[in-house]
Amino acid sequence: MTSSLSVIILAAGKGTRMQSAKPKVLQTLAGKSLLGHVLDTCHHLTVDETIVVYGFGGEQVQTAIDSQYAHLPITWVAQTEQLGTGHAVKVALDQLPKDGQSLILYGDVPLVSAHTLASLQTANDAGMSMLTLTVANPFGLGRIKRDQMGDIVAIVEQKDASSDEQQINEINSGIYCVDNVLLHKYLPKLSNDNAQQEYYLTDIVKMAVADGITITAIEPEHAFEIEGVNNRQQLASLERSWQNKLVADLQVAGVQFADPTRVDIRGSLTAGQDVFVDVGVVFEGDCTLGDNVYIEAGCIIKNSQIGNACHLKPYCVVDQTQIGAGVDIGPFAHLRPDTVLADNSRIGNFVEIKKSTIGHGSKVNHLSYIGDATVGTGVNVGAGVITCNYDGVNKSQTVIGDHVFVGSNSSLVAPVTIGDTATVAAGSVITEDVDNHSLALGRARQIQKSNYQRPAKTTK
Amino acid sequence: MTSSLSVIILAAGKGTRMQSAKPKVLQTLAGKSLLGHVLDTCHHLTVDETIVVYGFGGEQVQTAIDSQYAHLPITWVAQTEQLGTGHAVKVALDQLPKDGQSLILYGDVPLVSAHTLASLQTANDAGMSMLTLTVANPFGLGRIKRDQMGDIVAIVEQKDASSDEQQINEINSGIYCVDNVLLHKYLPKLSNDNAQQEYYLTDIVKMAVADGITITAIEPEHAFEIEGVNNRQQLASLERSWQNKLVADLQVAGVQFADPTRVDIRGSLTAGQDVFVDVGVVFEGDCTLGDNVYIEAGCIIKNSQIGNACHLKPYCVVDQTQIGAGVDIGPFAHLRPDTVLADNSRIGNFVEIKKSTIGHGSKVNHLSYIGDATVGTGVNVGAGVITCNYDGVNKSQTVIGDHVFVGSNSSLVAPVTIGDTATVAAGSVITEDVDNHSLALGRARQIQKSNYQRPAKTTK
Amino acid sequence: MTSSLSVIILAAGKGTRMQSAKPKVLQTLAGKSLLGHVLDTCHHLTVDETIVVYGFGGEQVQTAIDSQYAHLPITWVAQTEQLGTGHAVKVALDQLPKDGQSLILYGDVPLVSAHTLASLQTANDAGMSMLTLTVANPFGLGRIKRDQMGDIVAIVEQKDASSDEQQINEINSGIYCVDNVLLHKYLPKLSNDNAQQEYYLTDIVKMAVADGITITAIEPEHAFEIEGVNNRQQLASLERSWQNKLVADLQVAGVQFADPTRVDIRGSLTAGQDVFVDVGVVFEGDCTLGDNVYIEAGCIIKNSQIGNACHLKPYCVVDQTQIGAGVDIGPFAHLRPDTVLADNSRIGNFVEIKKSTIGHGSKVNHLSYIGDATVGTGVNVGAGVITCNYDGVNKSQTVIGDHVFVGSNSSLVAPVTIGDTATVAAGSVITEDVDNHSLALGRARQIQKSNYQRPAKTTK
Repeated sequence: MTSSLSVIILAAGKGTRMQSAKPKVLQTLAGKSLLGHVLDTCHHLTVDETIVVYGFGGEQVQTAIDSQYAHLPITWVAQTEQLGTGHAVKVALDQLPKDGQSLILYGDVPLVSAHTLASLQTANDAGMSMLTLTVANPFGLGRIKRDQMGDIVAIVEQKDASSDEQQINEINSGIYCVDNVLLHKYLPKLSNDNAQQEYYLTDIVKMAVADGITITAIEPEHAFEIEGVNNRQQLASLERSWQNKLVADLQVAGVQFADPTRVDIRGSLTAGQDVFVDVGVVFEGDCTLGDNVYIEAGCIIKNSQIGNACHLKPYCVVDQTQIGAGVDIGPFAHLRPDTVLADNSRIGNFVEIKKSTIGHGSKVNHLSYIGDATVGTGVNVGAGVITCNYDGVNKSQTVIGDHVFVGSNSSLVAPVTIGDTATVAAGSVITEDVDNHSLALGRARQIQKSNYQRPAKTTK
Repeated sequence: MTSSLSVIILAAGKGTRMQSAKPKVLQTLAGKSLLGHVLDTCHHLTVDETIVVYGFGGEQVQTAIDSQYAHLPITWVAQTEQLGTGHAVKVALDQLPKDGQSLILYGDVPLVSAHTLASLQTANDAGMSMLTLTVANPFGLGRIKRDQMGDIVAIVEQKDASSDEQQINEINSGIYCVDNVLLHKYLPKLSNDNAQQEYYLTDIVKMAVADGITITAIEPEHAFEIEGVNNRQQLASLERSWQNKLVADLQVAGVQFADPTRVDIRGSLTAGQDVFVDVGVVFEGDCTLGDNVYIEAGCIIKNSQIGNACHLKPYCVVDQTQIGAGVDIGPFAHLRPDTVLADNSRIGNFVEIKKSTIGHGSKVNHLSYIGDATVGTGVNVGAGVITCNYDGVNKSQTVIGDHVFVGSNSSLVAPVTIGDTATVAAGSVITEDVDNHSLALGRARQIQKSNYQRPAKTTK
Repeated sequence: MTSSLSVIILAAGKGTRMQSAKPKVLQTLAGKSLLGHVLDTCHHLTVDETIVVYGFGGEQVQTAIDSQYAHLPITWVAQTEQLGTGHAVKVALDQLPKDGQSLILYGDVPLVSAHTLASLQTANDAGMSMLTLTVANPFGLGRIKRDQMGDIVAIVEQKDASSDEQQINEINSGIYCVDNVLLHKYLPKLSNDNAQQEYYLTDIVKMAVADGITITAIEPEHAFEIEGVNNRQQLASLERSWQNKLVADLQVAGVQFADPTRVDIRGSLTAGQDVFVDVGVVFEGDCTLGDNVYIEAGCIIKNSQIGNACHLKPYCVVDQTQIGAGVDIGPFAHLRPDTVLADNSRIGNFVEIKKSTIGHGSKVNHLSYIGDATVGTGVNVGAGVITCNYDGVNKSQTVIGDHVFVGSNSSLVAPVTIGDTATVAAGSVITEDVDNHSLALGRARQIQKSNYQRPAKTTK
């Protein structure tokens, strides 16, 4: 049944055990906030309304999320007192349509998949569906009690479970898809008449059963999808599960990792055929690798596109860079945002490139800083060359034509243009434009003093 | 009962299986010798006398330890023959007070905690207490035999254990707290009438039982506390246990590790709130991190203090450096001993700083070497700037005033002073002091030769 | 019985699940192709003939292997159709001597050891021996069925196994040593009358049993020796097993690894006494380390020899370099092919050395590029010094004599010779040879403009 879909995300917890000034749902897993993971997942569904119930640090949460998720129409609802999950959903009722259905999710259960949620939505054909999991050790978790027909009849908490019920190893995730009409009917009836004096969301299950509703349960593909985060160990452990999954998916797609446990993917990684990723590599944001890309140990790559048959030697740090095909980089290259490297170019060791374009087949091989520059094709930039792009207040451009040879240790004081096929002599300071085909020098003549007396050791 | 406390550390083993020229107790775990770990732990107790029984490589041990532990009054006792643990303690008797009690420890059991030893000391109310451990697989280890009252009656070695005794899974650690009066009474009576012809320390247990003494046993918090080291695999495995514990403690305190299994802490690490530590980071010595410090992959930090909200980008190597608040560093920065970075300063890529102070808000962003220098506030040091602090025999100072602009690729030949608000032109060699507010240049005028003929390829 | 030994390597599989443009046997494990591992292992035996049966991507396989294994006389045999392992061996029969024996191996089972194969060969005293393994979970694998005498009577595939046979946990590796006379007799008789319509090599076992031949089975030392590779996960997992074994062997020999799970050895590593290897180190090709070598985190070392008591600081990248004794390197040093560092020399941070010799006790400490150079003994190369060895078409040599002092930021324009004990002033561009004992300068005089007006911020 197609109907409007709301999502209610409970995100009010403080996360005391995180020992943090940040609310728990803003803690990061694989470079993204816990709540951000849930929001991104919802974005893959057709969601009509996203309600986030906030509590502790609410303003901080809204500020952080609204700035990053401006494309999502979030309805923020305050839960000023922490009176249980049932209460949290109840405060959202005013914002909830009368019709349609709702997914109830948690800001600290970050890795539930869109596929699982879509299945959960599909499974809700009688008013309520829920996500459960069969586990080896259910101790401490709410058990799913079923009747002889296999129909769900109740959720039994650990402390209330009989000896028999404690043997049940199907447990409750707390994630539901419920018709809004039922939420509007049940939530006002919740009671806090229990030891904790809290309103439990789980009570809607028994209300539904009492109404004769058959609740459908489905299981997620991965156990980590329903895992919550309460402390730093759980956060780290859950991130490892996530990294293992991302790596396994890429292995199936044909990427070779030297060691699957020593790579980090914090965002999305798309890779072509026969890509090799060595140990200690970190990907952040959205990265794309072409075919036959070879990435050596310790490279850190962020929001970049790398073309076919590129070779990144060890310890390259690459950020917001677009790299053509057949480019060799590193070791120890630092490519900063807004860098574009054309096909077959070469960036060597201890080289920093910033906001610059390096042309086809051009080389910057050693100990250079190229910033705010346009470098043509077939250029050789010698060792130790520096674009002096900053005068203390302004940034200026350096333009280097095609087939230019820039001698080692020269300084190009921007704004300056070096014409096509020009040559800059080693050690020159270039402050004026250089014509095509010409040689520019800016250095003193060499002199020699014979029998030079070296400095003597000073006695202190 | 408060009484004087002696510590006897058995450290005479050669450690043949380490395949090393160093005696076993000088092998390092987490950057510190095995014996050093035990000595540091004892230092947290109120110890009146520390006796180390040495054997193989004794001089090497004393030299190494005395140089590092000059603050500890160690009594060195030679065990010239290796005749068993009982013999080792026996040779220490001459140095042992008649009264008080002794902890018997091992130079190759490095990770017993001060808390455990304090508990062991407290537990010794009848003359003898011992550290035992309940393990899943006790095979090969001495079992703790108890009577029906639960009192310890004997230690049974594997080879002597009956079928029933082999089921016992409480094992002997070899670590004891014993009244000195008992040690003086029992040790002379030890016999080597056994297959190995060795004097076993464990025999004091049966002597105490025979004397009607009730031996108290306590268990350590962590199993690794009683693990010994006999080969490189055990050493590496024990170090991993130790690293896991240090990381877990910091997680509880609120530090976020991207991967708890890929970080090394070799010494003490104190961290503020909301610190993030990425993969591959190594801490050595004593390090302190403020709140909101963000450390990216592969940083190596040694004996340094890092202020609030600092950001270390990937692959910074930092040694004996004091860093203020809000400082950005790296990637690929190398901060060497006696560097001080003031608040809001910035050190960029491929920059080495040695024995220098960088003032508030000052920047050294690219490819520079700053050594033996004092840099004022608000200074911009351009790319490729080098302090020429060494003339082959002497090191000299460079002083840069406030708000100076040092152009790229310049060389500052020390001793030299650049006055406040002065400007050094790019590519200059500065050999004389520069006045406040002035511009210093030391470079040749640029000339141009048109239609320059490039070098031709030499045919070989 | 000594007889001629042939090796038949089945290498025809495509490896569809690798998702690769390369045939499976060219996939790399620890830096070497799967087939290369098998060939190298055979090279440790006395093999008279090596037959490789190729199929998918055969030309690619031959090109890759022949270029690297020119010293091995490989007979290539095409299997044009993939009709099973029996068929693969059958197509090799024409190339097989009538006498002698053959090892039957697999191009995708890369890690069987020479020791195991030698044992297998020795075990073949009645015509056929085979490699089997006792495993905890034999599901899906061919079981070794034995009679009451313990003699092998058949290999039973999973799908044909009775309930009792399914309990057998000795499994077939597929690796055999067989007398050639039996291969010539049995293989033509193989039938493909089975569900898969394939010719199974395992059928030779029942033929041998029918002939009254007693088949000897031996087990490999390590389970990974018989593991095959069908997808990227298996490849990565097998590589980890291999790395663990290499590390464990070196631990037994006395090498200390900070973390045995965070080091990679891709080739052969020979190490002296008391070597320390920190986390994240990668060895490639053939590397030799002397005694007391200390290698810090993240070093990448390839085909290099490192002398006694060398210290590599973090993040050195070393390739085809020969290093004497007592040399300190790094952090962040890049030593490229054909570099030779004499005893007690020192290479510091952000330094690149290529095709150069650095003399005894000489230092290149900061931000330098030394290429195509010969540096004498006792030389100090200042920070930022660059050998300008390339004019755009030719590479030229720089020769620096003994005890030379090269001032910081100087450029040595090759070809150029700096005489013994000469001094080059900081910031000089040296284009002409410098005499012994003399001082060479090539820099402009410093001038000063007072009350200099700094550039103003441009309003855009």
